[in-house]
Parts: sequence; structure tokens; C-alpha cells
Amino acid sequence: MNDSRPIFIPVILGTPRQGRMSEHVANFVVDEVAKQDGVETELIDVRKVLLATDNAGQDIKDSQFSDTVNRADALILVAPEYNHGYPGVLKHLLDTNLKEYIHKAVGICGVSAGPFGGTRVIQNLLPVLRELGLVCIFWDGNFSTVQKTFDGSGKLLEQAYIRRLDKFFKELIWMAKVLRNGRENVSLT
Amino acid sequence: MNDSRPIFIPVILGTPRQGRMSEHVANFVVDEVAKQDGVETELIDVRKVLLATDNAGQDIKDSQFSDTVNRADALILVAPEYNHGYPGVLKHLLDTNLKEYIHKAVGICGVSAGPFGGTRVIQNLLPVLRELGLVCIFWDGNFSTVQKTFDGSGKLLEQAYIRRLDKFFKELIWMAKVLRNGRENVSLT
Amino acid sequence: MNDSRPIFIPVILGTPRQGRMSEHVANFVVDEVAKQDGVETELIDVRKVLLATDNAGQDIKDSQFSDTVNRADALILVAPEYNHGYPGVLKHLLDTNLKEYIHKAVGICGVSAGPFGGTRVIQNLLPVLRELGLVCIFWDGNFSTVQKTFDGSGKLLEQAYIRRLDKFFKELIWMAKVLRNGRENVSLT
Amino acid sequence: MNDSRPIFIPVILGTPRQGRMSEHVANFVVDEVAKQDGVETELIDVRKVLLATDNAGQDIKDSQFSDTVNRADALILVAPEYNHGYPGVLKHLLDTNLKEYIHKAVGICGVSAGPFGGTRVIQNLLPVLRELGLVCIFWDGNFSTVQKTFDGSGKLLEQAYIRRLDKFFKELIWMAKVLRNGRENVSLT
Repeated sequence: MNDSRPIFIPVILGTPRQGRMSEHVANFVVDEVAKQDGVETELIDVRKVLLATDNAGQDIKDSQFSDTVNRADALILVAPEYNHGYPGVLKHLLDTNLKEYIHKAVGICGVSAGPFGGTRVIQNLLPVLRELGLVCIFWDGNFSTVQKTFDGSGKLLEQAYIRRLDKFFKELIWMAKVLRNGRENVSLT
Repeated sequence: MNDSRPIFIPVILGTPRQGRMSEHVANFVVDEVAKQDGVETELIDVRKVLLATDNAGQDIKDSQFSDTVNRADALILVAPEYNHGYPGVLKHLLDTNLKEYIHKAVGICGVSAGPFGGTRVIQNLLPVLRELGLVCIFWDGNFSTVQKTFDGSGKLLEQAYIRRLDKFFKELIWMAKVLRNGRENVSLT
Repeated sequence: MNDSRPIFIPVILGTPRQGRMSEHVANFVVDEVAKQDGVETELIDVRKVLLATDNAGQDIKDSQFSDTVNRADALILVAPEYNHGYPGVLKHLLDTNLKEYIHKAVGICGVSAGPFGGTRVIQNLLPVLRELGLVCIFWDGNFSTVQKTFDGSGKLLEQAYIRRLDKFFKELIWMAKVLRNGRENVSLT
Repeated sequence: MNDSRPIFIPVILGTPRQGRMSEHVANFVVDEVAKQDGVETELIDVRKVLLATDNAGQDIKDSQFSDTVNRADALILVAPEYNHGYPGVLKHLLDTNLKEYIHKAVGICGVSAGPFGGTRVIQNLLPVLRELGLVCIFWDGNFSTVQKTFDGSGKLLEQAYIRRLDKFFKELIWMAKVLRNGRENVSLT
């Protein structure tokens, strides 16, 4: 398992709302994951993916998004909690692809205005991610009271978050490597 | 509790997709619920509600949808199962309102192409509906293999569904009446 | 709706584990709910309910537990979070009854050692409570880092919890009254 | 990845109830998984694991169960659906271990008396299995109307189930091999 190729982990910013604090989280996560050894990343902003709503599911995709997911080894979802569920626009985006996700790793960063770290949007996403064929790791990023965690310009105010993401990244990179090796070398007989 | 006013139960068709079979389910449910004693209904088609995606949550609403929910005593959601979750457009719509839902009843008709009656989209919606302040009843409508349950013109092919909705409607009407009485007569001291 | 009868709200302590911190939570909740106007309560400790595990479901019940639930207008579950789910013993107890729960209110106090207030055990319980016919209110009790919230003798160290339970109790009492009125006066036609 | 060692996949029969139909499912699954190339299996019956309920979590384990899970590459859970949740005894058993599960595969066979294949117990288990460190595959076994699927002696009456488990086994074996390779050869740096 000596594999020096980089691991590609795009970060999906999962809400298009005005004034979204999740944008600060996503930028922070992109910066931090980019510092990990052998990881490449990029930001996917749901605002910038062209999404028709009057389509018939997977038949109309944004080809750039599909291509990015296709090349990914893992995904990070930055998902604010709206009424204990996921943003509709994030789900609409996820539903446009299928085979692109299979046997890849995913980690979730839950974002909430309240004190509970977006745990409820994370729980709500789990069955969906499984059905997509993604493997959701068992560490999460939990961004509580996000309006106090970053200032208005997106500067992190609580340095503890850097250390907290450590195990999350380690586990995600491990799972991404393990599944890539599986996709390439283990047959589904 | 002699209350002769009608119960208003709008039906939300929860997907805008082309070729949506859920449209047949929604039309059928509207027809059937309209036959119940003292019930008024109307169809809310997510396709026809104007939804910006670049808003800031509840601050931009479709005023007609808000008004309809405001007047409702109960809602029926017709929700196809996409990757074991709810359609993004349905969630986006639900997230635009809040106080309009509180202490009202809701019933879910799950729709799936497979044999399991949309049970998984129903389970996925439960925490969201609770957080909105809705009371989800414990009977569901379960429309399995929907492409065989209706013909292309929307004609019901399995008459058993009429009888199966019976307990669902009775329970929903009961809960709608009970909660309306509560909203009007019991103070939240 | 002038109904001066008391509302009976038993509190279920949902774990039998040695060293259970949830016992402090349950005792605290019993004390606080007893202070509410017109509420009667008692503690149901899962340790003290005789439960066979080799039964066939509802056919062998603890008659005292059944009787208590039967007389209840609402329940409060004190549920520690074990691996993001509910304690097995709590579920085993809940599964022994059915018709006793129907159209009654329930509120959950989640308990966790970590900072997220037992939100995950709450989400995990929601579909079960619905299927039992209970109506779970949309306020919760969230007891985070419980080992710091109470001292070893069960004394509350964070007084803010008293105020935080206020809306939870108000909502639970409201729902208990509304559903009792429904059970007694609204027919399921 | 030329690895000729067998894959060990114990099957957990997740209910101790009298008259449990899940016993037939578990026996059937054990027989079928044993036919897969390079797989070893054994039945773990929750009835036969000694479980104290007055312990303090992981500190008192059944050493044989721990040892079996420790040696496992994957688990199959045979889980009947009780009130849309998992049996308490199954959860109680799962909660007694932790590090033994990490980075191993799991597949669920849901069992229900009704027509929906135990989908709701499966959804209810997902967050728990993730937290235990298990990776739940995205194929399930779905045993609907189980009382008609097996006769009283446990003989399978619907041969279609044999073929339906095919993809489930293939995926589980794939994931078990991929994760074993990961555990042994990929460091969590």
C-alpha cells in the first residue's frame, strides 16, 4: 500500500442562503484540509452549480459537479441545520448523481446557530449518504453557535476548532485511502 | 366540542420532477380527502410556488403558500423517496415558514418505485416535521411500486388503496380537530 | 375547557446502569415538574420494573407499569445517549405496552456526557414514540456534560437548567391537556 | 491484494422473544452466507449471551461475544422491527463492546410482519452502527411478512430470497475485505 498519489477531497458548501455563516466554515475547512499531507481540495459552492428543478432526476446533471465528484476520493459536506434537517438545495444537488459516489468516503461538518454542533442535520443525512453508496466516517465536525465562532469577515475566533478537526481529517483520509484501494484492487465477485 | 366548521387540509405535492408519478398520488389523495365529511382541501404543487434559493430563510416567503398553511388545520405531504430522503424542493418549501405550522396536524404519503411504500422518506421527514411544530400522525399512506399503482393518465389501478387510506384520514381529521380546539381554547400558561 | 383535574405525568428513568448520572436528572425533573400547577408525577425506574426478556412481546407485562402508563396523560423520558441510540432496557420496557400510550403526550430529556445535550438519542427515539401512538412535543430537555451539571449527591450545579425546562413543561402540559380533551370528547369517526 | 484467508462473518440473531420468526431468518442467512467462497460464519443468539443489566456499560462484557466480534471481519444483524425501532436486547448487547467493532463491515437483515421489509428498524440502527465504528453497507436483506416467508419449521417458502441476498453478500464480503486490508496495512497517521 505504498501509494504516493494525492487524495482529492472536495468540500461542498451546502447552502445558498444570503448571510450564510456556513461559508466561513467551508472556507476554514478547505484551508485546514489543504494542510494535510498529500491532500488536494477545492470548494464546491451550491450557489455556483446550475441546477434545474424541473428535471427528471439524474438525467440532467451539472457536468462539472459530476466530474469533480467522479475524481474525488472523499467528500466533506458543510451542512447547516435547518429545522433539524438538511438544506433542500444540498439534497437537490446530491440527488443529481449516483454512481459517482459509490465506495467513496464522506465526512460531515454540521453547522448550527445553537449549542449542539449541527448534530441533528448530521443524523438526518446519514441514511441518504448510505443510499448514495458513500461511507460516512464516525467522526464529525461540529460547529456550534457559528455566529460566535467566526467574525463577520470569516476569521476563526475559537482556535480549539483547529485541533478538533484533527481526528476528523485523519479518519477521513484513512477511509479515502482504504476505499480507493478497494475500488482499484478488490473485485466485487 | 360541537364544532361544525370545516377542517381545511391542503395536500402538498412535494416534487417538481418531470414525469413525477407523485402527481397521480396527490390528485388521488385530494379526491379522496375531499370525500371526507366536513373536509376542505386544495392541491399545493411545489412547481407553482415561487421559490428563490438565494434568500435568507424565512424572510422571503411565497405569500400565497404562507397564507394557505396559515389557514390549514392539517397538511398532507405527498413525498417521493429520493435516495432514502426527501426531495430538496419540498424541504426548501417547508423551510420558508415556521409559526404557520405550529400545533397543526400532518400526515405523510410516502411514494416509492420499489416495494417499501416510501417508508424511508417518511422516517427521514419525522424530525423535521416535529421541529416545525407539526404533529405527525401515526398512520401513513404508503404508495409502493407507484408506476404500477396508477396508469399513465393517473387512473388508480389498485382499488385497495382507497380502503387503506381510511384509517389515515380518520386519524388525521381527529388530530386536526383536537389540535384546533387546543389552539383556540387551551392556553399555553 | 374548564377542567380542574390534575395532569398525571410520570417520569421514566431510562437506564439501569451502575453509576447512572441520569438518576440525578430524573430526580431533578420529578422535583421540577411537581412544582407545576395541577401536575402530579412519580418516578418510574427501569431498574424496578420486572422485565422478562424471553417473552413474546406485549403478552407479558409488568402490570404496575401498564397501570401507571394507562393513568398517565403524558410521559417524560429521561434517556441517556448510548452510542447515539437509546438504552436497550428502556426500549424493552416501552415495547411491552401499546394501547396504553395512544394519543398521549411525551417529552424527552436527553442526557449525555458530551456537549450536545443528548440530541442524538432524542432523534433516535422519535420514530419509535410516533409508532407507539405518543405525540412527542417539540421542546426537549438537553442535559449536556451531565457529570458537571450535578455533583455526586445529585445536587444541581447549573441553575440555568431550571429556567430552561420552563418551555418544555409548558408545552408538555399544554399537549397533555389538549390530547386528554381529544381522547374524551372527540370521536374517531 | 492476494489474500486467501477466510472472511469471518458471524450472524447475530437480535431478539430473544418467544416464537421469534427471526430465528428462521438467521438460520437461513447463516446457511446462505456459509455457501459463499471463503466465508466462515457462526450464529450468535442474543438468548445465549449472558447479559447483566445492572452493569456500567462496557466494563462487564460477555467474554465469548467480545472474542467473536474481535475475530470478525464483518457482522450480519438479523433485526426484527419492534415499533419501528430495534429490539432492546440487541442494543443492550451491542453497547457492551466498542473497540471490537471499529473499521469492520456490517449488513442488516430487517424482519417485519408487515410488507415493508423491516426498513424502519434498518433506518433506526444506522446512526448507532456508525457510532460503533462499523461501516454499514448499502444493500440490505429485507424480510417482509416473515410469517409467510418461512413455515413453522423454518423452511423457506419463497425461493426468491436466495437470489435477493446475492448482492447483499457480495457487497458485504467486498467491504469486509477492503476494511481488513485497511486495518492491517493503512496507518491512521
